[in-house]
Amino acid sequence: MQDKVLIVGAGAIGAFYGALLAKAGAEVAVACRSDYQIVKRQGYQIISASLGDWTFLPSQVVKTTDDYQGQADYLILCTKMTADIDRAEIIRAAVSPQTTIVFIQNGVETEQELLDAFPDNEIVSGLAFICCNRLQPGQISHLAYGKLTLGQLPAGIGDKTRHLAELFNQSGIDCVAMDDIITGRWTKCVWNAPFNPLSVLSGGLATQDIVRSQESFIRAIMHEVCAIAAACGHPLAENVVDLNIQSTYKMPPYRTSMLLDFENGQPMETEVILGNAVRAGEREHIACPNLKALYALMKLRELKIAESKRQDKR
Amino acid sequence: MQDKVLIVGAGAIGAFYGALLAKAGAEVAVACRSDYQIVKRQGYQIISASLGDWTFLPSQVVKTTDDYQGQADYLILCTKMTADIDRAEIIRAAVSPQTTIVFIQNGVETEQELLDAFPDNEIVSGLAFICCNRLQPGQISHLAYGKLTLGQLPAGIGDKTRHLAELFNQSGIDCVAMDDIITGRWTKCVWNAPFNPLSVLSGGLATQDIVRSQESFIRAIMHEVCAIAAACGHPLAENVVDLNIQSTYKMPPYRTSMLLDFENGQPMETEVILGNAVRAGEREHIACPNLKALYALMKLRELKIAESKRQDKR
Repeated sequence: MQDKVLIVGAGAIGAFYGALLAKAGAEVAVACRSDYQIVKRQGYQIISASLGDWTFLPSQVVKTTDDYQGQADYLILCTKMTADIDRAEIIRAAVSPQTTIVFIQNGVETEQELLDAFPDNEIVSGLAFICCNRLQPGQISHLAYGKLTLGQLPAGIGDKTRHLAELFNQSGIDCVAMDDIITGRWTKCVWNAPFNPLSVLSGGLATQDIVRSQESFIRAIMHEVCAIAAACGHPLAENVVDLNIQSTYKMPPYRTSMLLDFENGQPMETEVILGNAVRAGEREHIACPNLKALYALMKLRELKIAESKRQDKR
Repeated sequence: MQDKVLIVGAGAIGAFYGALLAKAGAEVAVACRSDYQIVKRQGYQIISASLGDWTFLPSQVVKTTDDYQGQADYLILCTKMTADIDRAEIIRAAVSPQTTIVFIQNGVETEQELLDAFPDNEIVSGLAFICCNRLQPGQISHLAYGKLTLGQLPAGIGDKTRHLAELFNQSGIDCVAMDDIITGRWTKCVWNAPFNPLSVLSGGLATQDIVRSQESFIRAIMHEVCAIAAACGHPLAENVVDLNIQSTYKMPPYRTSMLLDFENGQPMETEVILGNAVRAGEREHIACPNLKALYALMKLRELKIAESKRQDKR
């Protein structure tokens, strides 16, 4: 039987992963607001350096989950994690008892909201290591990477998680299921917590310039993330800081997602990437002055952006 | 006998204080590079909210101290404190045995360079609390404040310091001589170390918005400056942090000098305001993670500025 999938928040990442699942044989619907008209008419055009180009025609295109017809086996939530979004609210109408809720979103400590709202559903946390952009409405460019890591909450790997990982693997993307996905999220935060804010606060430096100029500062921030993760019961690999530093030197100069959001005048994921880490540190009584300083600075930056927007409106 | 004064670096602050001394009866020459031609022709036009408007005609206008004629009683150095300036070098030609060298410049731990270069001269450290701008070549606007604090190095108040303070007081500006000017410098750094970098890193917020939004962060930075000053043998007043916070709430929204430099594409005084404080903290083994974070961020900002300038040139 064909798996029924509903992608909620079909921006670049949601549309791309949805297109992969359709390629693997699933019946994939999408809920999208901004590009609704054009996607309804012609679907998504996927342009991928590694997987070729193809058109993804969703089985249904809806504006909100209220309009979704049927019962999804998997609801995959891919919206950006900004402060104004109530994740439970936007998916609730399409969640049936058998629906596995998967969220492929940034940040740490973002689980509880969904666990509380859907205590009887299987919930899967997903981490995407991918570089893809929306070129224009309905057109998605997949530039590099794509690896997906999935894990059931609170821990473990269930049958449906394993099956979803298989579908992704069939579609040509590397997808692994991991036992402790929360540790995976903290591991990703080791890189995100310094490089996302610093790319914005520096005025737009690429990651290589940042690490070359301020390696010891970056390491100090990364070690704070490790200490917080350990205090939360998720000790990270001992060499995680070294590996992240080394890989950043080797990566091509990379402009972070937060920098792209900033430059495009979009809300940034400050709270889930940095704010949640700082709050976890405070709760666990772990000193994290560098994370706190970055968080305070990002809040000032956001205040300035809000001020400028108010002035533009006058 | 008329006091002979040479102002070196006659930007807004140098020209304004020179004009005051001329008003008080001193013979005031200026060394200035950028506005040399117009100042030689017509002097400086001073426009002051509190002291009225007048024209200041220097006794000599020279490009460099090599061209200065005579022996100065006071050489007052007012250049900006950027990394590329060798202060001893630019004043050397005009320093006679009886010349008292006064520097009215920002920053902490900036004394040694001059003490080493001129071991036999009296050296006076000066702190200006002033708001004045160069409106156009040869035209200086004095907006508010003006208070000057002077103190001999390494400490104490000599006759010539007292005499200079009297001249300034006669001219209509408040000038006090203080016994331990180095403590005065650290006290000023308590305000400068947070607000100057944060005004830039926030993208241009005024000081009131910064303190309203992030008071506890500001306090943490200020306490680090206090701890470093104490370790350097200059304990600050116990209520200095509270007073600085209170006065910032009361000040009109203020855009710092570092922010103005940044917006005008000028070099910023990052090293003397922040770098020297961090280096003193490291030398004295005082933990100052917030100052270090701000310093690292300012270095990244400067790296981005240099990168953008290189690209503009192409």
